[in-house]
Amino acid sequence: MDAAEFRKRGKEMVDYIADYLEKIDKRQVFPDVEPGYLRPLIPDCAPQDPENFEDVFKDIEKIIMPGVTHWHSPYFFAYFPAASSFPALLADMLCGGIGCVGFSWAASPACTELETVVLDWLGKMINLPEEFLAGKDGRGGGVIQGSASEATLMSLLAARTKTIRRVQSEKPELTEAEIMGRLVAYASDQAHSSVERAALIGGVKIKNVPSDEKFTVCGSTLKKVLEEDKAAGLIPFFFCATLGTTPCCSFDKLLELGPICNKENIWMHIDAAYAGSAFICPEFRHLLNGVEFADSFNFNPHKWLLVNFDCSAMWVKKRSDLTGAFKLEPLYLQHHHQESGLVTDYRHWQIPLGRRFRSLKLWFVLRMYGVTGLQEHIRKHVELSHQFEHLVLQDERFEICAEVILGLVCFRLKGSNELNKALFKSINEAKKIHLVPCYLREKFVLRFAICSRTVESTHIKFAWQHMSQLATDLLKTWEPNQQQQ
Amino acid sequence: MDAAEFRKRGKEMVDYIADYLEKIDKRQVFPDVEPGYLRPLIPDCAPQDPENFEDVFKDIEKIIMPGVTHWHSPYFFAYFPAASSFPALLADMLCGGIGCVGFSWAASPACTELETVVLDWLGKMINLPEEFLAGKDGRGGGVIQGSASEATLMSLLAARTKTIRRVQSEKPELTEAEIMGRLVAYASDQAHSSVERAALIGGVKIKNVPSDEKFTVCGSTLKKVLEEDKAAGLIPFFFCATLGTTPCCSFDKLLELGPICNKENIWMHIDAAYAGSAFICPEFRHLLNGVEFADSFNFNPHKWLLVNFDCSAMWVKKRSDLTGAFKLEPLYLQHHHQESGLVTDYRHWQIPLGRRFRSLKLWFVLRMYGVTGLQEHIRKHVELSHQFEHLVLQDERFEICAEVILGLVCFRLKGSNELNKALFKSINEAKKIHLVPCYLREKFVLRFAICSRTVESTHIKFAWQHMSQLATDLLKTWEPNQQQQ
Repeated sequence: MDAAEFRKRGKEMVDYIADYLEKIDKRQVFPDVEPGYLRPLIPDCAPQDPENFEDVFKDIEKIIMPGVTHWHSPYFFAYFPAASSFPALLADMLCGGIGCVGFSWAASPACTELETVVLDWLGKMINLPEEFLAGKDGRGGGVIQGSASEATLMSLLAARTKTIRRVQSEKPELTEAEIMGRLVAYASDQAHSSVERAALIGGVKIKNVPSDEKFTVCGSTLKKVLEEDKAAGLIPFFFCATLGTTPCCSFDKLLELGPICNKENIWMHIDAAYAGSAFICPEFRHLLNGVEFADSFNFNPHKWLLVNFDCSAMWVKKRSDLTGAFKLEPLYLQHHHQESGLVTDYRHWQIPLGRRFRSLKLWFVLRMYGVTGLQEHIRKHVELSHQFEHLVLQDERFEICAEVILGLVCFRLKGSNELNKALFKSINEAKKIHLVPCYLREKFVLRFAICSRTVESTHIKFAWQHMSQLATDLLKTWEPNQQQQ
Repeated sequence: MDAAEFRKRGKEMVDYIADYLEKIDKRQVFPDVEPGYLRPLIPDCAPQDPENFEDVFKDIEKIIMPGVTHWHSPYFFAYFPAASSFPALLADMLCGGIGCVGFSWAASPACTELETVVLDWLGKMINLPEEFLAGKDGRGGGVIQGSASEATLMSLLAARTKTIRRVQSEKPELTEAEIMGRLVAYASDQAHSSVERAALIGGVKIKNVPSDEKFTVCGSTLKKVLEEDKAAGLIPFFFCATLGTTPCCSFDKLLELGPICNKENIWMHIDAAYAGSAFICPEFRHLLNGVEFADSFNFNPHKWLLVNFDCSAMWVKKRSDLTGAFKLEPLYLQHHHQESGLVTDYRHWQIPLGRRFRSLKLWFVLRMYGVTGLQEHIRKHVELSHQFEHLVLQDERFEICAEVILGLVCFRLKGSNELNKALFKSINEAKKIHLVPCYLREKFVLRFAICSRTVESTHIKFAWQHMSQLATDLLKTWEPNQQQQ
């Protein structure tokens, strides 16, 4: 395919994407396929000779779309939102066209510099303390990671190295392996599974800190756990606070936890993967109070800020903590400017070496929506979740299971887990909407997350009426059945 | 921006990208900017109100392009190639449009299933042993990672868990920390820095295995190192063999190394990040002989197989080794089909949780080039590197520093490192072509990598004449200067 054909096919693809997104509400949100559906539909091997674009293009509707879960459907209420917007799509096209691999400043200066500056923009939008910004000569700064998992892992690894060095200087008799064996990381029992995974990768212990009745970790609980562990000879070194937990969007108490971490030489990382986008609205910014105690902070514009995946924004107060954890400099990656202090080599800030020009997406979105446009987007989602909450509260068969703060509503039928599992099963089998469940303590709960950029009040009402009807149908037959179980 | 405007702007962007790539040879391959160039060019903060597309679009040429290193210029000979092709760009647009986050089968079945099948295609193209393929009920299979660094890290972590479990069952008196403290990973002294980094992340020791005069690791050297370390009470657990090292594209001797690793219960991972693409040509496939001894294998279609970054293909013989290393199953990520055996949840195969629909790129490229089209691409690059090699060899001032096997030529002026550093400096200051140096043992060497999809014989000749002229100019003034140094 030459440039001339790309011009033609690229424009067809633009129209296809526009059509797809404009009419996505006409597609069934969750596919009908069974596992293994795709293999029989395509050949066993790659073709020997080139196929033409038409044949490949036809297969999108024939082979791919029947197996797609439509994350941008207004009937999608599962997980958390995956961001998507037209400005981000345009920027991502440009990113592909430029096709640089920006692991160092020299590998493409624009790629690095735009990222640093645009993360300062974003940091200012959520009113991050100055220390987290790069500015012209700051010690902190931002970086785009692929995912919150990577941000958590990078901060845990930086904390690990920092702590090992500190303990070794205090107690030179301990080997690195002995210190590693005593390190403990902490996170809420409501924290995302990626925090436990980061600790497993880093080869250190991790402990759950019990959350309270609001699914929140408070200072006194953390303090108690730390005292016990220190008494047992362990070395607490890392605490991951969560703002907006995955199960129910609860918020750990930063203002209590932060000073404890600072006093105990514990790295505090804040994972606000979903909730972070809301902090651009002044009325939600108080949820971030206490960030001043943190060493690192992360949220995902690719969740709720209209920047397509992947774009996970992370800031640190001391960039040297990240880069110092691993810095390796083979000659083929060295370049003339690297000792100038002005230069950021982002490969030291992340797990992979290579990186795409992802800041273009963020830059396009921030400019073409403006702060006000993005605030409107957040506010609309929060309004819709409260609208759904009210619908639930008006039906006395149902209960709300956690305070609705942003765009997630956890609810269930009053009654047994089995009853709610049956309701969930009937929702998923009907495939008119898509959501996922979770457990809050021992309760099986349905999670209703406002996701799509184009979701409106009518879709919320439809979803509620649909689930309410399924509940009615279920309850008609439930009580006799329940006796048998 | 609504869908109607996206149709218009998307088409403009397609034309912009086509123009950029068609006329990329007219741009200076390496930018003139100094560190910090970008910040003064854009505002301090994100705009409050939306800007229009024209204003953003204008800034691409004004602010971004002056700071771009043009990786797809036919005058770019640095690092290794970054793949780019029109079919891959089209597929990536579609990937953005669908915008699913395929961490589990249910999150978008097509995203998972296409990946499994297309990696079987690719595995067959390089004639990987059957055990690495997923097939309908295989124990192995392929996955797309973001980078070779992640593939190396995943395999090291899987090996670490497997070894800890084995040693614990043999010697229950050892704690996990004690075992961790004795684990050692190995790689060639020519291996990529990401291998050392993986070991640092995993909290285990790593040792360089000395390469021979061809920059190759042989069995006898590895054996000797292993004997010494075992005698010292260490536990060798992981060896990363390199096919196509970054400094000079040398190849470790798999047929000698593999049986040793198998016998010693050492996980053998093969990093063929750059060279792997060449194995689709029968005449280069012998370089992969011995892969049958490996536990995992990786190469980057995003380097040399015309699939835009990121697309790093990794295969394992036992998928349970990868998934068993971390498997964590919170309810919100569980789904109906996950115990069926047919289902692959790729989140267990990788570091991040989220993932893009990257297999679309690979599928489009394999179909629209066909195996023969991709073979032509590889062969053309290898021919061009030999053409450059011949030019160098005809000039007795220069020497070739390592055998030219694929698309990389390491060369230098006969003489001191200082002389070659001066030559490198003059090449980089002229900015007519772009390349990077490396050290081979104590020798400072210039790396000339055939990179661009559109590079032709004329560009190679131009590059050679240019460097040859710079060498002439340099040598005229060199000898007197050298006395003074």
